[in-house]
Amino acid sequence: MTDPGTNQRGATESYSPVLPDDVEELVGAVLERVAAAELSLTTAESCTGGMLASILTDVQGLSGVFERGFVVYSDPAKCELLGLAQADIDRCGAVSEEVAVAMAEGALANSRADIAVSTTGYADDGPVPGLVHFACARRDGPTTHRVERFGAIGRGPVRIESMRVALQMIESVL
Amino acid sequence: MTDPGTNQRGATESYSPVLPDDVEELVGAVLERVAAAELSLTTAESCTGGMLASILTDVQGLSGVFERGFVVYSDPAKCELLGLAQADIDRCGAVSEEVAVAMAEGALANSRADIAVSTTGYADDGPVPGLVHFACARRDGPTTHRVERFGAIGRGPVRIESMRVALQMIESVL
Repeated sequence: MTDPGTNQRGATESYSPVLPDDVEELVGAVLERVAAAELSLTTAESCTGGMLASILTDVQGLSGVFERGFVVYSDPAKCELLGLAQADIDRCGAVSEEVAVAMAEGALANSRADIAVSTTGYADDGPVPGLVHFACARRDGPTTHRVERFGAIGRGPVRIESMRVALQMIESVL
Repeated sequence: MTDPGTNQRGATESYSPVLPDDVEELVGAVLERVAAAELSLTTAESCTGGMLASILTDVQGLSGVFERGFVVYSDPAKCELLGLAQADIDRCGAVSEEVAVAMAEGALANSRADIAVSTTGYADDGPVPGLVHFACARRDGPTTHRVERFGAIGRGPVRIESMRVALQMIESVL
């Protein structure tokens, strides 16, 4: 087996994010179900930094399902783009159920999409490496929350594992 | 050489986006220079769908350089998040110099970042597959524009090649 970190870079075939098979299948399945239901998606990402939006727009013919995405790394971004209150972030912590829920609901409120999913967590730093809170909001429906403790598995793996969870959460509200 | 599309998925080491070596080096170099200058970045992405934000937030210790990102796939997203006028999009086309420039300047106006870079193009569909317009705006500085015609090289490669150009544009305004 070759080392994906060296040998394969530069080869045209390797020019896409390398996702585990089940996550790649999940992306396609979720996008097809959202499209079939004539719904659209939005994302509010902190620790995943745009990766979720990136994979949700990377399937030919289905990228129209994605309406818009917010990458809200900083607290001011969370407040100004999604309507969170800095006092609430200070009280609950940026990595918390409350902030994840507010991010998902704020993404719905600030988009035309039907379903919003959010991520906020510590990738490979912070007090609890691998702790990620997720929320999924559907217009006129309840908002769900999930928390995962992936542990200190590294920045890349935390982000990829977060993809799987976020996709499962979208699937669960369809 | 193994096939990156099958054998390697699922291996923990392959859990990060596979970028060509020079692009990966460019990400680190650009982030370090932006951090050293105590500046921050924002992105406004259409055809790259969050991939640029994702790679700009994937370097440990340097993710604070990234202030916020906008994934503006739809015209309403471009208008509502970045202040574009639908009439201008209709007149110039969503894939145009005018829209790329307005996206970069709109990202600056709607963030606290110092430098904004935008992408709008056709990945593997549309009238001109591989046509991508880029703009880079710096607060109190001029906005630069660049257009690339990558050709019908496929969705993934267009997105990756766009990473290189966007990073070069950030570098050029530092």
